Amino acid sequence: MFEDAEIGRSVDKKAYEKRLAKVRADLLKAQHARAATRFRFGVVICGVEGGGKTERARRLVDWMDARGLTVEAYGDASDEARERPEYWRYWTTSPASGRGAILLGAWYTRPIVQRALREIREGAFEEALDRARAFEAMGTREGTVFVKLWLHLSKKGQRRRLRELEADPATAWRVSKRDWEFAGRYDRFRKVSARAVSRTDAPEASWTVIEATDRHYRDLTAAETLLAALKEALERAKRPEPAHAPDRPKPPKMSVLTRLDLSKSLTEAAYEKKLDKQQARIAELTRRMRRDRRSLVCGFEGVDAAGKGGAIRRLLSAVDARNSRVMAVAAPTDEERAHSYLWRFWRNLPRLGRVQIYDRTWYGRVLVERVEGFCAPEDWKRAYDEISAFERELSESGVIVCKFWLQIDAAEQLKRFGSRELTPFKQYKITDEDWRNREKWDAYQAAAVEMIAKTSLPEAPWTLVEAQDKKWARVKVLKTVADRLEEEL
Amino acid sequence: MFEDAEIGRSVDKKAYEKRLAKVRADLLKAQHARAATRFRFGVVICGVEGGGKTERARRLVDWMDARGLTVEAYGDASDEARERPEYWRYWTTSPASGRGAILLGAWYTRPIVQRALREIREGAFEEALDRARAFEAMGTREGTVFVKLWLHLSKKGQRRRLRELEADPATAWRVSKRDWEFAGRYDRFRKVSARAVSRTDAPEASWTVIEATDRHYRDLTAAETLLAALKEALERAKRPEPAHAPDRPKPPKMSVLTRLDLSKSLTEAAYEKKLDKQQARIAELTRRMRRDRRSLVCGFEGVDAAGKGGAIRRLLSAVDARNSRVMAVAAPTDEERAHSYLWRFWRNLPRLGRVQIYDRTWYGRVLVERVEGFCAPEDWKRAYDEISAFERELSESGVIVCKFWLQIDAAEQLKRFGSRELTPFKQYKITDEDWRNREKWDAYQAAAVEMIAKTSLPEAPWTLVEAQDKKWARVKVLKTVADRLEEEL
Repeated sequence: MFEDAEIGRSVDKKAYEKRLAKVRADLLKAQHARAATRFRFGVVICGVEGGGKTERARRLVDWMDARGLTVEAYGDASDEARERPEYWRYWTTSPASGRGAILLGAWYTRPIVQRALREIREGAFEEALDRARAFEAMGTREGTVFVKLWLHLSKKGQRRRLRELEADPATAWRVSKRDWEFAGRYDRFRKVSARAVSRTDAPEASWTVIEATDRHYRDLTAAETLLAALKEALERAKRPEPAHAPDRPKPPKMSVLTRLDLSKSLTEAAYEKKLDKQQARIAELTRRMRRDRRSLVCGFEGVDAAGKGGAIRRLLSAVDARNSRVMAVAAPTDEERAHSYLWRFWRNLPRLGRVQIYDRTWYGRVLVERVEGFCAPEDWKRAYDEISAFERELSESGVIVCKFWLQIDAAEQLKRFGSRELTPFKQYKITDEDWRNREKWDAYQAAAVEMIAKTSLPEAPWTLVEAQDKKWARVKVLKTVADRLEEEL
Repeated sequence: MFEDAEIGRSVDKKAYEKRLAKVRADLLKAQHARAATRFRFGVVICGVEGGGKTERARRLVDWMDARGLTVEAYGDASDEARERPEYWRYWTTSPASGRGAILLGAWYTRPIVQRALREIREGAFEEALDRARAFEAMGTREGTVFVKLWLHLSKKGQRRRLRELEADPATAWRVSKRDWEFAGRYDRFRKVSARAVSRTDAPEASWTVIEATDRHYRDLTAAETLLAALKEALERAKRPEPAHAPDRPKPPKMSVLTRLDLSKSLTEAAYEKKLDKQQARIAELTRRMRRDRRSLVCGFEGVDAAGKGGAIRRLLSAVDARNSRVMAVAAPTDEERAHSYLWRFWRNLPRLGRVQIYDRTWYGRVLVERVEGFCAPEDWKRAYDEISAFERELSESGVIVCKFWLQIDAAEQLKRFGSRELTPFKQYKITDEDWRNREKWDAYQAAAVEMIAKTSLPEAPWTLVEAQDKKWARVKVLKTVADRLEEEL
């Protein structure tokens, strides 16, 4: 893996300056090209201690337009980060379209150091690498260009570099005790790093191993590698995006949705009693959840007027208003549009002990975006996997995930639309779009059936709710949440 | 102050239900009115322990559309918050246009509790209240409707309420040891609270003291107070906004800008030497700054092509790329437009130990927004005070603030525009707007002179930089930063 980066490559000063002038001008040009607003780039810089990662970042910032770049070092996690899934930091610091980020160590430092120091086993190490690979794969498909640079030094080269840095008063502070400790385990780190590089060397986000002994060679090669990647991305971005036809799948005659018994209902008296009971359970259980430092995420989907809002209100009534929040998922803001479709859900993830409710969710990708043709078929098709991975990450970090599909039939929807038009304070809910979506009923049902089949995870199951009777639906939602909390706590 | 809230007001169940149905419908209607997207609202709920603040929040969420509301409880600050000025939490959690927030205790709890327990003196207490008042005054002028509710209980009433809550197993958890402690100091809290309420009872954000003994009366009054405020805001929001004429002030013949000696320059050799020296100083000083847990904010202003970018790059070269960031201030995103003009700077404030550079700043309000007529005259006129208050807050929390105005003359600007058109990799910087702004030279100079006069604070001074010679300008900027750091650390 690293042998090819120990053969003594170098660039003399004159050649360096000539090539540098060219690559700088081209990098700036690429950064400011009109098409550059259509993607984002992440320069992952990893490598041995003393290889010059920070130095490299500084130079890149120097050579490019710093206003379009951020440098992320991912030191110790803040408590905000510690109370969320590991990748929350990487999601929330990812650059917007038209911008770039230099990611020092990125998501590689932790698993490599832990594995080198034998704090984690090979299985956990591989899992961490696969997660990194999946994260990059999704990022790439969502428009991020990853340029991954591994700055390599030989064992001798590293010792020499650390000694050089220490000798110069201006750089001595950069060498820490930890650097020498790690240098003392050079062979171990090398082996583990080689494993990391090979396992995450994906076609869409490949590694460039750079011999870092000669600074000129190192810096030029890094800059030229980035430039080549940006140029390629610009070419791709210039191509017009093909228009996506709406997808209007036919629903199966029999499905989990048609099998629901929509006649289920509750009398007013039974409803009041049961609702009270479930709300009391949830009040008690969410307090315990807070003590146990777990959090709860509930997502609601269903056709318009299925009763999501009413169910959410009853759920909210039961939990401490100070620790709960509802996100209504509407059209994304321009900041949200400048990121991957999951970004806005990541940025809204609750801290430990809290409740976050999503009125419509990340499943919009495989429902409205699919049916209305807002994304390409390959985009919504891959989303099942991406979403499952997302929910698995939530679950692994201690979040209890509940997902509800509220089902009514077409006649009931029409009836509710009609009554909304008559009740003055409910009128705001009716929009033209509701009436249009009504016509696409079949397509949405089919998309929902497929979604439910593909994304019912043990750790994040779908609960299908017979919602023709609102009272029945609300009690079922609340009972499900209470049961899940009881089971998980 | 509170005597009028101890006279035994109550509402019977029947009247309550009737009025409730009406107020709920009207609240929802107000929340969803078209004009409601033009303002935001903050419901501040304060009052004695046991007065039902959380209960009240829960009811409001219940009665309104929870998707347009958040509840903020402001418990212990996270480390992210602790590493920024106190009001960072209040700024970053303020609702966007069209939305509301219920703020439990808001910015009042800390000073009131600290003063009641005698942890702070009267002077500091009054200062905290004045800051709260100024924050609300600015918020109001920027389109936030504050509804401040003080839920009051008499001494006896509070004891009775706490005992009631404790007696019921479903609510016993709500009563903490602290509640009883505070109840034991009822008179002291009452006195301090009265002081807080009277000092912050501003015409634009007045308090409503509500007798909280009877729940029906309390909840109805709170809802009706909010409704009245929303209705009033809707009426105001419906009025068409008057168009603002651009403001084109004439510059004074003599000013701090005309007095600058633009012939100052450096030879290449002197430049290299001095630049190296200042960069080394800054490298060392920013490391010390990080150890001392201080942070640095540098803002750059100046006409187009004044050399802001070049100076920023030299400054960045000297600091650790991992701990520094540049924000280029361009047109605001839609999320930014949905908040006060200072919000986007608050949200980008650095944590302790870091460097944040702004390429153009919050002074856009009194420069481009004034000259181009993007805001009303009263808006940019009040901005001098608001901005000074902002910078004072930064400074008080340990941020070292440097502000630079880079000055060139009109002929030099023209020359630089011309040469930019010839240098291929600099072309991206020239836009039509640059050429238009060129014509408004005089107005911008006059606006700058006024800005400098009104916002040169001891804790955040303006440094005027003779920038006709780029080398001179860069060295002066870096030396100023180094000197300031040395002085402050």
